[in-house]
Amino acid sequence: MLLLSREDIKRVFTMKDAIAADKEAFILHSQGKSKVPLRTNIKAPKHEGVFLFMPSYVEDLDTAALKIINIFPNNIDKGIPSAPAQVLLINGATGIVDAVLDGTYVTQLRTGAATGAAFDVLARQDAKIGALIGTGGQAATQLEAMLAARDLEEVRVFDVNFDRTTAFAKKMREELQAYGAKIIAVNSSDEAIDQADVIVTVTPSCIPVFDGNLVKAGATLSCVGAYQPHMQEMDPIILTRASKIYFDSKEAVLSESGDILIPLADGTITEEDFTGDIGDLLMGKIKGRENDEEIIVFETVGIGTQDLVTAKIIYDKAVEKGMGLTWGETEVPSPVVLA
Amino acid sequence: MLLLSREDIKRVFTMKDAIAADKEAFILHSQGKSKVPLRTNIKAPKHEGVFLFMPSYVEDLDTAALKIINIFPNNIDKGIPSAPAQVLLINGATGIVDAVLDGTYVTQLRTGAATGAAFDVLARQDAKIGALIGTGGQAATQLEAMLAARDLEEVRVFDVNFDRTTAFAKKMREELQAYGAKIIAVNSSDEAIDQADVIVTVTPSCIPVFDGNLVKAGATLSCVGAYQPHMQEMDPIILTRASKIYFDSKEAVLSESGDILIPLADGTITEEDFTGDIGDLLMGKIKGRENDEEIIVFETVGIGTQDLVTAKIIYDKAVEKGMGLTWGETEVPSPVVLA
Repeated sequence: MLLLSREDIKRVFTMKDAIAADKEAFILHSQGKSKVPLRTNIKAPKHEGVFLFMPSYVEDLDTAALKIINIFPNNIDKGIPSAPAQVLLINGATGIVDAVLDGTYVTQLRTGAATGAAFDVLARQDAKIGALIGTGGQAATQLEAMLAARDLEEVRVFDVNFDRTTAFAKKMREELQAYGAKIIAVNSSDEAIDQADVIVTVTPSCIPVFDGNLVKAGATLSCVGAYQPHMQEMDPIILTRASKIYFDSKEAVLSESGDILIPLADGTITEEDFTGDIGDLLMGKIKGRENDEEIIVFETVGIGTQDLVTAKIIYDKAVEKGMGLTWGETEVPSPVVLA
Repeated sequence: MLLLSREDIKRVFTMKDAIAADKEAFILHSQGKSKVPLRTNIKAPKHEGVFLFMPSYVEDLDTAALKIINIFPNNIDKGIPSAPAQVLLINGATGIVDAVLDGTYVTQLRTGAATGAAFDVLARQDAKIGALIGTGGQAATQLEAMLAARDLEEVRVFDVNFDRTTAFAKKMREELQAYGAKIIAVNSSDEAIDQADVIVTVTPSCIPVFDGNLVKAGATLSCVGAYQPHMQEMDPIILTRASKIYFDSKEAVLSESGDILIPLADGTITEEDFTGDIGDLLMGKIKGRENDEEIIVFETVGIGTQDLVTAKIIYDKAVEKGMGLTWGETEVPSPVVLA
C-alpha cells in the first residue's frame, strides 16, 4: 500500500492535472460508467459530528475508491480540521487497497478543478478579471483553478472578515505568484464582482453573498459552497439573467443544493431553464457558450467519481516517480478450503 | 495515523485479548449500543469480484470503524489473497482516522475469537478433545481460539485434501506448541468428531461436512463458514439434537446463514428452538449450559462491532507500547468562512 501525503501529492500533481482528471470524471459520469452508491452516513450526536463513507467504482478504469469524510464542526475549538478526510484507492481487478491519500487535499483539488473545468470550457477566452467570494478551506484551490483556466490579470477576494481576507490574499500572492496575476483583498462583494469575467462563490452561506444585478454581461459563475438544501450563496437573480445553467450532476445538485432547490421551489426558475451536465458538454452532446455576452452559471456539489479519478491519476504518477511511503506486506494467500 | 501490520498486531494482542474484545462487542450489540448500517456492496462483474464496505460506530467507546473487504476469488490464480481487507479505526470524538490495521488479520482474530467466546461460556469445563473441519484462511485462529478457551489434550483436523490437512496440522503444531495440545490430521470428519467435546466447522461448503448423529452428548459446536443463504456446512440433525442454539446476532444469522435458514425453511427447526444471542448470555439475561449432557450449537456470521472493538483494543495497546508506523502530518485547519 502506498501512502500519499499532501506534500507527496503536490510533488507529482498540478492543478492542470486536476482539471483534466475532473473532466474525465464528468464524462464518465455522463456516460453512466461510474457506480456511485448512496453514501453511508452515521451521526455522532454526542460530539455533533457525522461520519460519511462515499464509495465509487469505475469498471473502465479497473478502480474503486472510498472517501471517508467526517464533519466535526467543534474540532475548530480544538485546533484540528473540521472535516478530516482520507481517500482509499482500490485496485478494481484484485480488490487490494493500493493507496491511502490525504483526503482533505484530494477534496480541495477536485473541488477547485470542477470550477477550473467549467471555466475552461465556458468562460470568455479573453477573461481578465476574477472574483473569489469566501476564504475557507476550499478557497485556495478555487483561486488556483481560475488562474489555471484563464490568463487573468487580477482576482479580487472578498470575505466578511477583512483581516482574514487580507491574510488569505497575501498567502495566495506568495503561493500562486507563478501565475502572474494581481490578487487583492477587497471590502465588499460589489467591489469584487465589478467587471469580473469569472466569479466563484465558496461559502457556507444561507443568504446570497453577491448582488446578481451587478454581474456584468459575459460573466461565468461557479457556485461551490451550497451543498445542503438550506444553503444558498448564489443570488437567484443571476439564474434569471443567465442564458445557460450547467451542473456537475443534475441529480446530485437537485438532491443537495439550496442554490438551485430554493429558486426552483419558489418558481424563480423551472427545470426548463437547466442546460445540462458539464460531462455532456465535454462530450459535445449539448451546447456551450455561444457569444461573449451570455451569462453562464455552473453549480457543483461534488461527485464521488471526481475523487476516484483524481486519486487514480495521482497514484499512477506517484508510482511512476517513486513518491510516497510504501507500507505493508503482501501476504501469501491461504488456500481456499474445499471441504 | 498509525499503521498496524499483522506482525505489529501479533506483538501486542493475543487470542485471549481477542476473545475479551469479542465478548465486549457481543454485549454492546445486545445492548443496542452499536450502530452498524447495512454494508455497501459494489459488484465488479468483469473480474467476478465484489467490494464490501462495512461501517460501524459505538458512541460509548467514542469510536467508529470501517472494514473494507473485497472478495475476488480469481486472485488465487494470481497467488494473492482472495479477500484482501483493511480496517480503518476512526476517532469518534473528532472524526480523524487514527489507524489502518491489516484487515485480513483483524478478521481472522475476531472470527476465531467468536468461537473462543462461545466455547469459553458454553463448552464443558472438562473438554479434552477438539475437532476442526476446514483448513482455509480462517482455520488457524479458530484452532487457537479452541485452545485458548479450554485445556484440550488433542485436536483432530479434517479437510477434503489430506495433503493440505497434513501441512496445516504440521504448521499449527509449530505455531501453537505453547498450548501443549496434540494437533493431528485425520482422514474423515467421522474420525475428527468422534468423542469430540468441542467442534468447529469453518468451510464454504453447501452440503453438511459432518454426521450430526455421531456428535457425542455434551459437545459444543461452533459453525462459522456458512455466511450466505445457500451455504450449509452444519448437519441439520444436530439442531434437533441440540438443547440450545445461540447466535452472534440472530438478525445477522437469519439474513445470511444457510446453516439456519435452510432447516428453518424446511421445517426441521422453528424460531422456538432458538435460545438467543450470546451477548444476552454474557449479560446473564438468558441461560447457558445447564448440564454436561447437553449438545449446544453456536452459529456465527460476524458483526461489524467485532471489528470495531477488536481494532480499538489493538490500537490502544499499540499506542501504549509504541508499536506500528506513524504516517501523515496534522494539518493546521483553515478557518471556517462566514461570508
